Amino acid sequence: MYIIVVYDIADPKRGLKVLNYLRTKLIWVQNSVFEGEVTNSGFQEILFKLRNIIDSLKDSVIYYTFDSKNYTTRNVMGLNKNKIDNFI
Amino acid sequence: MYIIVVYDIADPKRGLKVLNYLRTKLIWVQNSVFEGEVTNSGFQEILFKLRNIIDSLKDSVIYYTFDSKNYTTRNVMGLNKNKIDNFI
Repeated sequence: MYIIVVYDIADPKRGLKVLNYLRTKLIWVQNSVFEGEVTNSGFQEILFKLRNIIDSLKDSVIYYTFDSKNYTTRNVMGLNKNKIDNFI
Repeated sequence: MYIIVVYDIADPKRGLKVLNYLRTKLIWVQNSVFEGEVTNSGFQEILFKLRNIIDSLKDSVIYYTFDSKNYTTRNVMGLNKNKIDNFI
């Protein structure tokens, strides 16, 4: 499946942990936004790990899931921060 | 069509302009993230307006488009900042 993850972390230390973790699993596309193809078990692992990092009373993580990335188109206006853009 | 807009604006003043504009057109779901159903002309209007607000050398706006919001599922982990949640 394909996922987009956007997060809003109240504490910079936890924010950095989320950033560094997601970098190992997904493609960084913008400040606090990642996306990528994942297996179902990979997806569950990401959710499990994020739940352990964030403070659920202060932080927010939103994730969008798709059966296929063909269902969506991503466009960038202005600065394209992700130069290695492998999105179709 | 259904759109998700995530933005990263270098200047707080421009960031506030983007926030206030998008509030009139879409549903706010998280810090710097909006989404909503739009007509094709409504979508073009949003793009036109955002291009006028942002500094394309410093700011970044990413927008995902879908034919239907049925193609995606949104889930929130932690704080649900958007209490009026009308996403299916």
